Amino acid sequence: MKILLIGFGSVGRRLSAILAGDPARFPWLSRLRPSVVGIVTRAHGSAADPEGIDLARVLLPGGFPGQASVPMTAREAVGSLEYDVLVELSTLSIADRGEPAVSHVRAALTRKRHAVTANKGPAAFAHAELAGLARSSGVRFLFESAVMDGAPVFAMARASLKGCTVTGISGILNSTTNFILSQMEEGLSPEEALRRAQQEGFAEADPRLDLEGWDPAVKLSVLSTVLMGIPLPAESIQREGITHVTCESVRKAREAGTRLKLVCRAWREGGGARGRVGVEEVSSDNPFATVRGSASALRLETDLMGPITIMQENPTVTDTAYGVLNDLLTIAG
Amino acid sequence: MKILLIGFGSVGRRLSAILAGDPARFPWLSRLRPSVVGIVTRAHGSAADPEGIDLARVLLPGGFPGQASVPMTAREAVGSLEYDVLVELSTLSIADRGEPAVSHVRAALTRKRHAVTANKGPAAFAHAELAGLARSSGVRFLFESAVMDGAPVFAMARASLKGCTVTGISGILNSTTNFILSQMEEGLSPEEALRRAQQEGFAEADPRLDLEGWDPAVKLSVLSTVLMGIPLPAESIQREGITHVTCESVRKAREAGTRLKLVCRAWREGGGARGRVGVEEVSSDNPFATVRGSASALRLETDLMGPITIMQENPTVTDTAYGVLNDLLTIAG
Repeated sequence: MKILLIGFGSVGRRLSAILAGDPARFPWLSRLRPSVVGIVTRAHGSAADPEGIDLARVLLPGGFPGQASVPMTAREAVGSLEYDVLVELSTLSIADRGEPAVSHVRAALTRKRHAVTANKGPAAFAHAELAGLARSSGVRFLFESAVMDGAPVFAMARASLKGCTVTGISGILNSTTNFILSQMEEGLSPEEALRRAQQEGFAEADPRLDLEGWDPAVKLSVLSTVLMGIPLPAESIQREGITHVTCESVRKAREAGTRLKLVCRAWREGGGARGRVGVEEVSSDNPFATVRGSASALRLETDLMGPITIMQENPTVTDTAYGVLNDLLTIAG
Repeated sequence: MKILLIGFGSVGRRLSAILAGDPARFPWLSRLRPSVVGIVTRAHGSAADPEGIDLARVLLPGGFPGQASVPMTAREAVGSLEYDVLVELSTLSIADRGEPAVSHVRAALTRKRHAVTANKGPAAFAHAELAGLARSSGVRFLFESAVMDGAPVFAMARASLKGCTVTGISGILNSTTNFILSQMEEGLSPEEALRRAQQEGFAEADPRLDLEGWDPAVKLSVLSTVLMGIPLPAESIQREGITHVTCESVRKAREAGTRLKLVCRAWREGGGARGRVGVEEVSSDNPFATVRGSASALRLETDLMGPITIMQENPTVTDTAYGVLNDLLTIAG
């Protein structure tokens, strides 16, 4: 499988390290036979090799782009290189409505190449168009890591929800705000807690995406669109962040035996979908109360089965890389 | 899809009611086009019709086997009727090592017919043989409902764990014992709690299967075999039930802020797998502590992703029927 990588930050590097791993440890490698033919970054150069870039070498400190350096833009690479799968790992931009990732994915699908992305943008802002394009091109558009990293969400839904209709979605879907609320329970101020989240490396580059609830709203938009089959634009979601939460209110909730959580909810209403992201007081016998630190949880209600809840514990960058890998293996069949 | 049903108890009837449902409500019906060509029970007669049994009619009170009555044994039906998929819904027998379900599934697979079962026996006692037979016959052997009813377990694993290796499994997998422990927390005696579980209809026919930990041990055996790829015979699992748990010990745990739970664990050791089913004191910040009543939970550790936990809330017979349905839709592709 020939892979074009857009983005070579922590996720791209971890994915590359796994793909360059030991076939004795990862038996699926002999089936996937990955060959990364291009790596493009916004500010750190780019590399290409139709025979496959030497991943071990570019992963060395200062090793990228190295010998394989070929100056090109992401747009040029997506439009001209010979690859089977585009792996889009650029950063989400809400202001630009998912661009340039949306354009990259569109260009790959138009060229009948599969597209995998860990960026929420394409699925949040252009799902109907891109899914339709993938269908008519006979290729896949996959984004397992867009919500809860590599934890089972979209592949699980395709495999396990074949006969049922999702009627409601709720979840704790933003690591940073959940981590901050957990730290505030331990006595930290909101500012100290945010700083610690940034040190641990899972806060979004722009903290407002987390703190004002945009990141979970975008995730809820993707979940509603894909799992309920009803588009729910992120802008239409009633959205509240955690900026108004004080140490005092966190402590009061604890004293009452509850916990404050930023909870996402989407539900069917009048033929459409509605959504809300807001701080809720969660009772201690609710599984959501046990979602601590950077953990996440997703609860699905359906017409025939469940409700079921998927919980993920404090993921690392490996979990995000794993979601991309699982998509590659889905494409490999 | 021509279906042969062995067993017509609550799950078989609920499944039949769904299959006889409204295509406007269940859009997948037009793709599946189910036709039940045979229904065989142990003690209540049997029916067959190569054109498809009128499900609405046999579901009426006293309507089975009715006009389509054809006296035959399950063995005869599995070996001679023309069907695409065997749906095996007979009751688990540990003493008989999964028989007669194992033989029914084997006979169907040998005839190159798919086999779906909600019975844990075939996967627990003959997985290697039956999975190999299915492979060589080019058909599927599926058993989503064997653990946690229709909640995502085996289909999820096939779809979402493609690139990782499961290294450890834990769970609360037996509704009856969990329900009894929850009721004892509310002040009921063990006997009263068991009676209530039986009234609610989810206790196994033979209460020892639940109370002595056999049912969860068999489930753990299936999970280890399928998800870790290491056979773990139910007899080899260190097994403790809840018969020694007193109201006093339940109350003491609550006073200490914990809950007593019957927890299953399987792990890799020395190239093999080991397993244990036993009562554990679970702390309140563990998601397992929120598994109340007849709910279940399964936690998977892997080499690259997770840990993840799947939780199911108080399932009904519809959840079990749904797991079978999801298997049928997996076969339909």
